[in-house]
Amino acid sequence: MEPRRVALVGATGYTGAELLRLLLGHPQARLTGLYGRAQAGRPIAESLPAFAGVALPPVSRFDAAEVASQADFAFLAVPHGAAQEAAASLLAAGVRVIDLSADHRFDDPAFYARVYSPHAHPESLALTTYGQPERFRDRIRDARIVGSAGCYPTSVILAAGPALDAGIVLPEVIADCKSGVSGAGRVPGAGTHFSETSEGLHAYKTLAHRHAPEISRALGGVRVRFVPHLIPMNRGILATVYLRLQPGVDAAQVRAVYEKAFENETFVALLPAGAHPDTRHVRGTNRCHIGLFVDDDLLVVQSVIDNLGKGAAGQAIQCFNLMAGLPEDTGLQHTALFP
Amino acid sequence: MEPRRVALVGATGYTGAELLRLLLGHPQARLTGLYGRAQAGRPIAESLPAFAGVALPPVSRFDAAEVASQADFAFLAVPHGAAQEAAASLLAAGVRVIDLSADHRFDDPAFYARVYSPHAHPESLALTTYGQPERFRDRIRDARIVGSAGCYPTSVILAAGPALDAGIVLPEVIADCKSGVSGAGRVPGAGTHFSETSEGLHAYKTLAHRHAPEISRALGGVRVRFVPHLIPMNRGILATVYLRLQPGVDAAQVRAVYEKAFENETFVALLPAGAHPDTRHVRGTNRCHIGLFVDDDLLVVQSVIDNLGKGAAGQAIQCFNLMAGLPEDTGLQHTALFP
Amino acid sequence: MEPRRVALVGATGYTGAELLRLLLGHPQARLTGLYGRAQAGRPIAESLPAFAGVALPPVSRFDAAEVASQADFAFLAVPHGAAQEAAASLLAAGVRVIDLSADHRFDDPAFYARVYSPHAHPESLALTTYGQPERFRDRIRDARIVGSAGCYPTSVILAAGPALDAGIVLPEVIADCKSGVSGAGRVPGAGTHFSETSEGLHAYKTLAHRHAPEISRALGGVRVRFVPHLIPMNRGILATVYLRLQPGVDAAQVRAVYEKAFENETFVALLPAGAHPDTRHVRGTNRCHIGLFVDDDLLVVQSVIDNLGKGAAGQAIQCFNLMAGLPEDTGLQHTALFP
Amino acid sequence: MEPRRVALVGATGYTGAELLRLLLGHPQARLTGLYGRAQAGRPIAESLPAFAGVALPPVSRFDAAEVASQADFAFLAVPHGAAQEAAASLLAAGVRVIDLSADHRFDDPAFYARVYSPHAHPESLALTTYGQPERFRDRIRDARIVGSAGCYPTSVILAAGPALDAGIVLPEVIADCKSGVSGAGRVPGAGTHFSETSEGLHAYKTLAHRHAPEISRALGGVRVRFVPHLIPMNRGILATVYLRLQPGVDAAQVRAVYEKAFENETFVALLPAGAHPDTRHVRGTNRCHIGLFVDDDLLVVQSVIDNLGKGAAGQAIQCFNLMAGLPEDTGLQHTALFP
Repeated sequence: MEPRRVALVGATGYTGAELLRLLLGHPQARLTGLYGRAQAGRPIAESLPAFAGVALPPVSRFDAAEVASQADFAFLAVPHGAAQEAAASLLAAGVRVIDLSADHRFDDPAFYARVYSPHAHPESLALTTYGQPERFRDRIRDARIVGSAGCYPTSVILAAGPALDAGIVLPEVIADCKSGVSGAGRVPGAGTHFSETSEGLHAYKTLAHRHAPEISRALGGVRVRFVPHLIPMNRGILATVYLRLQPGVDAAQVRAVYEKAFENETFVALLPAGAHPDTRHVRGTNRCHIGLFVDDDLLVVQSVIDNLGKGAAGQAIQCFNLMAGLPEDTGLQHTALFP
Repeated sequence: MEPRRVALVGATGYTGAELLRLLLGHPQARLTGLYGRAQAGRPIAESLPAFAGVALPPVSRFDAAEVASQADFAFLAVPHGAAQEAAASLLAAGVRVIDLSADHRFDDPAFYARVYSPHAHPESLALTTYGQPERFRDRIRDARIVGSAGCYPTSVILAAGPALDAGIVLPEVIADCKSGVSGAGRVPGAGTHFSETSEGLHAYKTLAHRHAPEISRALGGVRVRFVPHLIPMNRGILATVYLRLQPGVDAAQVRAVYEKAFENETFVALLPAGAHPDTRHVRGTNRCHIGLFVDDDLLVVQSVIDNLGKGAAGQAIQCFNLMAGLPEDTGLQHTALFP
Repeated sequence: MEPRRVALVGATGYTGAELLRLLLGHPQARLTGLYGRAQAGRPIAESLPAFAGVALPPVSRFDAAEVASQADFAFLAVPHGAAQEAAASLLAAGVRVIDLSADHRFDDPAFYARVYSPHAHPESLALTTYGQPERFRDRIRDARIVGSAGCYPTSVILAAGPALDAGIVLPEVIADCKSGVSGAGRVPGAGTHFSETSEGLHAYKTLAHRHAPEISRALGGVRVRFVPHLIPMNRGILATVYLRLQPGVDAAQVRAVYEKAFENETFVALLPAGAHPDTRHVRGTNRCHIGLFVDDDLLVVQSVIDNLGKGAAGQAIQCFNLMAGLPEDTGLQHTALFP
Repeated sequence: MEPRRVALVGATGYTGAELLRLLLGHPQARLTGLYGRAQAGRPIAESLPAFAGVALPPVSRFDAAEVASQADFAFLAVPHGAAQEAAASLLAAGVRVIDLSADHRFDDPAFYARVYSPHAHPESLALTTYGQPERFRDRIRDARIVGSAGCYPTSVILAAGPALDAGIVLPEVIADCKSGVSGAGRVPGAGTHFSETSEGLHAYKTLAHRHAPEISRALGGVRVRFVPHLIPMNRGILATVYLRLQPGVDAAQVRAVYEKAFENETFVALLPAGAHPDTRHVRGTNRCHIGLFVDDDLLVVQSVIDNLGKGAAGQAIQCFNLMAGLPEDTGLQHTALFP
């Protein structure tokens, strides 16, 4: 079978760099073009020295027609907002799109407008599918465009989804999430300056982060209370999710629900009773580890992912694999870079 | 006024080193002796090179009579368990004791035994007072022995106490706490090995940590659900506390309750609305910063302390100041080492 | 004796914040004013939350006449370049100046112009003294203006000075220095972005850093080969200095030279033979630890300082103490915040 | 072509874990057995949760005959000393060995004894080859046993080798090396305790580390002055190497020498003039980046590798590829996990 021809639009941010790393090792993807703005015409190793000595196409200025002439799939790793125009032009040119920004995560323009602002191409939203494969695998296969799920939402959906779906908990989620700093992107700012980020810890956007409605929508409208925290590390999200068990539900039933939910999932490992997941054990991978803890009526679910892996580039490639009819784990079988 | 004569028992762990640092800068404390076991007879700078070039008494082998001949107060910075015998002998010799271990935090031997194991000197428990000055200031002044409050409990008590005392929340606390690694002490182990601790994150002892009953007892028996997390940094605790507001209570009322609770507290700063406390802003101090967030019926309180400062050595000196009739902030006015 | 009246110009950068922290704890300094530009009219705690809850004068717009009416000494913690005008106006108004920028470290305008660019107030350079007290103590006492020594230069001067002065090594220094990130200041940039700074390591400005001529000049014109490296930590400099011993000089002679050089220095501790200095043992202090290693004709000297302490704010206060006729260690006796 | 059958002896340390990660992704290696002591009989995910959910053979107790019945190649990732017996028995059974310990890096028993202590199986040393492929590629191809080069030596050999070989520098190397903490292994100790390792920096074994003779021998007996430093990060070595140019050699000639030396090397990238290599750009890879800096008669070469990759497991697999007649980069084409 011929490898699929893929284009990468926006290679110099962290999700772009991670996509590039993963695509270079993907046996069924052939990278036909790298597209960007600031870097157009220059070798990618200038902005990403990690690729020094690696043969790569030069960065080209984005042009939908050119992409369409060379690729069947395009990954968009551009800032939120910038993906709307790019996606619309690529869709019009017949390219299937995996968007890693927040621009195509909702298929309802009114909902999108409430969370963000009015969408420039609501017709794209009519085509889009939420890119969280464990939950929406079937829809992704045939999608023309996928809005790859956000990092925090992925961690919470995998942690809380099984219990909510099984009806063993009340329909309310408290999600206390902890993220590495790479989730904030590559543009420097006061909030990601080393000396204001290392050796310290704080929450941000408490109860007011835009990922809360994304989580809620993916979980069927459940109430979500979301508090994200910035952790002095590069990669990783730990979601500590607090759920209230329905009366009479015990730890064994909880475990049975989660075992069943994940029994066929390649990328999700339910840890043994008592084991605590750690982000370092999924670093650089598309994997998720889950731990379960019950005390009387309280269920605490802990999930860990790599925010740039399963929370971004890995999951985007998982979506691509589904769209391309490939085995879901093609090019994604890595285990963690530990330590 | 003559400085108080103080002894430090157990100087080479992290709380001991922090006590030593603080006592050297305390204008009303005169350090008359350093006591230890493994280090007896050797200069302290061998195990704590931070004191190279500083004139200090050599480490002596602990002897209650000798301590009593030279000091009126003794700080115990020895491992949990080891403080029971030392405290009993010091009390018998007339020395007032500030114990930083967990050995004298409960005045009820049966409660102590349930959380830990039977106490070797229940008669000491009859004399002890819980060393959390903002809450139990009056009892501490006259105490012969104080069990300085634990680091996690201090962070949660300061965060949740005002709301619970004012009756504006239901009597249940979910405390999602994040601690730096120094809280685990100075003895190396797999759980504090650099490569298993940096660049990653995990919870531990979920819903099963001994600080939960300590918190509960200090807060009048309220139900406490406690999940501690280990953060890749040295110092600092951030407590994210989830409380349910009584019907009809709004954000303004919450703020009024906290303003009143802390209006005369030197060491507690209530941050402006919307501001998130960060552990780096209290590093090396006896201070606590508090942030308040309300969404409908949910109150999220965030508090930050330095686990070795307000969570251990700083608070112990605050207790000492009270016991010695000194202004509560004597020797504790430092602001944070930032960055 | 009345405390000296001091003003702090530029409080919101890292050296300014450290000065503020130290001045608040200085028993013979009374802070009469905080001056800045962007923050003028606003409480300092807005830009430095570490001072939340601490009573401080509001930030005023800098005005030399106003400073002169309230203070006898002014610390300048403003960016390189900005100190030239401020210092000139303060000197004219009779205020003695301690400048922490690079603007007044050379008394020779031509030399200054070669390293940086022509100085706007060469008349200030005629008055200035290099603020490295262990080396130029006597000149500092009577100086009207001091250019506080740079962080890297301080580490190298203390390491190499004794051997060079004693003539036991050839007149050439290789200085392989390693610095924490706070040395790069508080303005965010790609080079100090957390994810490009943590968990990695690189040199910068190899053999081309402006601190090389500063070191050379302070050491009497010796040849200096200087390679600075950026270390993923906040504070601290370790200088590993390579020197060639004159024929016949052995380790015992080397040690004797250093012992004599530092025997009366409060802030410099020569570690025992075989001991390696570590930046963590001087964090937050004005101290320097030195280790000596000899192999045949090679002398390796290792020195550690806190780049914001002995390398900036601490040393500036040490200069102030000398200028004010105070004991040199007034307000500087802290031991390290460890860990 | 059939994949080669390989065994991994000692999987639970850091080099073992990295080998396991790499072997799982190696298209021409089939892992037939995992061997260990403490973990024998238990799933590897217990000690390495990064492999949770991954199908792997259980850990068996090491037995040379059993290994020989199932594998043609064995990787030894056991502590220094323990590899001597294992290697001898495997060689006797006809298995080709890649040893990652220091036990088989010298083919001269007397030299080995001087650096370490007498070798239990000098007959193995008669067979061994130093496993640094860029330098000893030809000998490795036919070797029955390879002693994979140490991490520090690899960084220094690649940095200094070309200049020394070309005779453009004096035969003396000053190597100021900086390593991440994972190089110290997985056994906890005071020197790798998080709070004594993070946020600080120190040298160790100055001029007395056993890697100095290893470097010297690989470089033909040149004099090596070696000072290793411990950096608060997990992975990575930066070697800053100081060399004296022969009279008349200039920067252009230096660059020409290095370009020629590495023109056919897949894993070594010579960075453009002025560029500084950074360990983060080779993290998780078998790559090495080199930067060159010249000032008059001084040549500073900077090289970066991943101590667990090119400095251990990656290089071991590179040796295996040579021994097995495979393309040298089989299974090693990864680019860095960045950030």
